[in-house]
Amino acid sequence: MHAEILSVGTELLLGEITDTNAQYISARLKDIGVDVFRRVTVGDNPARLEAAFREAIGRADIIIATGGLGPTEDDLTAQCLAASLGRKLVFNEAAWALIEERLRKRGRAGSEADKKQAYIIEGGLFFPNREGTAPGQAVLFDGKLAAILPGPPREMRPMFDTQVLPLICKTYEGLQPILSVNLKLVGIPEAKVNEVLKDLMESANPSCAPYVGVGEVRIRIAAKGSSTREAQLMLSKVEEEVRRRLGGYIYGQDEETLEEAVAVLLRKRGMTLAVAESVTGGLVCHRLTGVPGISRHLIAGMVAYSPKIKVSCLGVPSEAALRDQAVNEEVARSMAEGIRRLAGADIGLATTGFAGPEGGTEREPVGTVYVGLSDKRGYLVDRQVYPGSRSSVKEFGAQRALYILWKHLKEWEK
Amino acid sequence: MHAEILSVGTELLLGEITDTNAQYISARLKDIGVDVFRRVTVGDNPARLEAAFREAIGRADIIIATGGLGPTEDDLTAQCLAASLGRKLVFNEAAWALIEERLRKRGRAGSEADKKQAYIIEGGLFFPNREGTAPGQAVLFDGKLAAILPGPPREMRPMFDTQVLPLICKTYEGLQPILSVNLKLVGIPEAKVNEVLKDLMESANPSCAPYVGVGEVRIRIAAKGSSTREAQLMLSKVEEEVRRRLGGYIYGQDEETLEEAVAVLLRKRGMTLAVAESVTGGLVCHRLTGVPGISRHLIAGMVAYSPKIKVSCLGVPSEAALRDQAVNEEVARSMAEGIRRLAGADIGLATTGFAGPEGGTEREPVGTVYVGLSDKRGYLVDRQVYPGSRSSVKEFGAQRALYILWKHLKEWEK
Repeated sequence: MHAEILSVGTELLLGEITDTNAQYISARLKDIGVDVFRRVTVGDNPARLEAAFREAIGRADIIIATGGLGPTEDDLTAQCLAASLGRKLVFNEAAWALIEERLRKRGRAGSEADKKQAYIIEGGLFFPNREGTAPGQAVLFDGKLAAILPGPPREMRPMFDTQVLPLICKTYEGLQPILSVNLKLVGIPEAKVNEVLKDLMESANPSCAPYVGVGEVRIRIAAKGSSTREAQLMLSKVEEEVRRRLGGYIYGQDEETLEEAVAVLLRKRGMTLAVAESVTGGLVCHRLTGVPGISRHLIAGMVAYSPKIKVSCLGVPSEAALRDQAVNEEVARSMAEGIRRLAGADIGLATTGFAGPEGGTEREPVGTVYVGLSDKRGYLVDRQVYPGSRSSVKEFGAQRALYILWKHLKEWEK
Repeated sequence: MHAEILSVGTELLLGEITDTNAQYISARLKDIGVDVFRRVTVGDNPARLEAAFREAIGRADIIIATGGLGPTEDDLTAQCLAASLGRKLVFNEAAWALIEERLRKRGRAGSEADKKQAYIIEGGLFFPNREGTAPGQAVLFDGKLAAILPGPPREMRPMFDTQVLPLICKTYEGLQPILSVNLKLVGIPEAKVNEVLKDLMESANPSCAPYVGVGEVRIRIAAKGSSTREAQLMLSKVEEEVRRRLGGYIYGQDEETLEEAVAVLLRKRGMTLAVAESVTGGLVCHRLTGVPGISRHLIAGMVAYSPKIKVSCLGVPSEAALRDQAVNEEVARSMAEGIRRLAGADIGLATTGFAGPEGGTEREPVGTVYVGLSDKRGYLVDRQVYPGSRSSVKEFGAQRALYILWKHLKEWEK
């Protein structure tokens, strides 16, 4: 059972936008035991696109194409797949009704251009698009399956997971799964993980490999067995061993984020939080507010960029606010205490530092990030110096702040 | 002059992480007239990786590989390229000195594993890594050029732009550029852009195509001529025409962001800003604080998630804070006025709404985003309802808030 993935769009070929779809689809297909033998990227050119479909159909059992389903002139994917199969496109009332409903929700009426998206390949079926207008399509022929999906990942992903993947599994029997898990660690460098897992990393199946992220390390464990049960057993054995060796650093797995792990602990402890950000400029709050239900715990956040605001709103001592342009331990501490008092929260979290490119002092160079944490029992302050651009200092700093908070909540006992 | 791009890493093949490097490199090579004929993704397997290098060397003039240069067991890219060329790896003192310096800055001493990154291909040269530890490498042979670069984009990109690209241009003569520009528009739907530019979109060279983004539309114009000058003339002609038709919606081009456009206008108007966010949860501030020098204009931001804080800190009338769970026009307006007064800023910007998945009322469903703007002359409130997940509502909402602010600043006259 082989699949081929087509990414459609001149903007991809020219590197105008990033293709995350091919990777996403590979991962999902891999999990059900379908190998992706080839990935092809083609532009918005009817001849080349139709040819790419013909070749793919010649080579693969399953063809998944993304992109080129929109209302504009250069969206040609449905036409080209239809042509490569010698089929027509037929206007589909049901598909059009869903598109019109979606447009109404956005306060727009359907135009002629929009109508184009309701033409479905003869004998094929369509997938409603819960996140956008253009429906996906699939057609079965000669024991093969071709699906075309919208390009925007937030539209493509749920459509692929909830509609295309089940269709594939229903169509083909005995797809043997690879099972895998990603353990996510904070507070330990990759080199250390590498040392601790050296022996496990030498095995090919089950495999075990660390990947470094921004302020965290991911350990991927994968197992392929003759049966799902066997694969599961192989996987569990290694996972347990990794957890035994490094459990204290693991905040979650797979899609779980550090901010979700923090939210879980806030819920468990029944605690409230307030955040005052300088160097991270709102990124800590942005990440936390990405978690549904966080509003019950995150009372308030403040981006206190100017020393004036640090003093007037958060009660930072003015002499501390002047020292090293407000990048020092006392400011981090008093910002955390100040926002905690202001919001009446159990925990105050604060960041101050220099993201660059300008700024910095002899004592506190660009890249310096102080994290302050305050609760009723006292405070702690953490200092790091990060390399890289303004945005990477912000990212590393926000990750560090969430790590400090996570560690504090994890180890906190009544 | 053909290039082949190798993306190295089992995590890529399995879709564990997204490969943005191949697209980035394609775009840069395209701009200097080097066509990328193939992209290959291979795993961390020495035999398959060495084979991929041999094939690439057989096919292409320029081979660019990314990933697999780190300190861990499964980082094999340098070894495999060396083997495919029948060359040794030689320990390089200068490279090691830079790696140690980088590690010192992070407060770490160099381990044996780190040392691995200082082995350079015999007769090759290395590229210092300003954003991380692993240096890149390049080797010239039989009129061909092979370069291997670190996988993390924030390390690979500056290395490619400042070190690899100049080396390629120095090595090969007469590389003919394609010239292109991306114009970025807000406040106009893609279908409308499509209508207005229909005639221009029919031309193949110069080409003109709109791409839809989150709350914005990008128009890519590209021209290939027999000379740079000719290409530039072809490009300018179309660009001028597009600007003539849609100039009012264009906030910037290429890498310019909407928040940068806002910062430019704040500077031009000599105005200060304060932001109060509910539904966008810090994303507006996060985007604004990504702009160097914004601290001179952005006085303060607040994430006022709970109605209590909206009332106590921002002076939102409590009856308004209760109506539709604080999602209404009056709250948006009074939040904007409140943060403006609190910070003593010229402009107050505010967001309130329902990001979901829970929440929403009959009048104000999930996806509703109010944007409020206040200045000394008065206020305005904008209401939109967006589809999609919590994160996409936050993204659309933040984009809308920045658009409202940009439009206000653009049209503002003393």
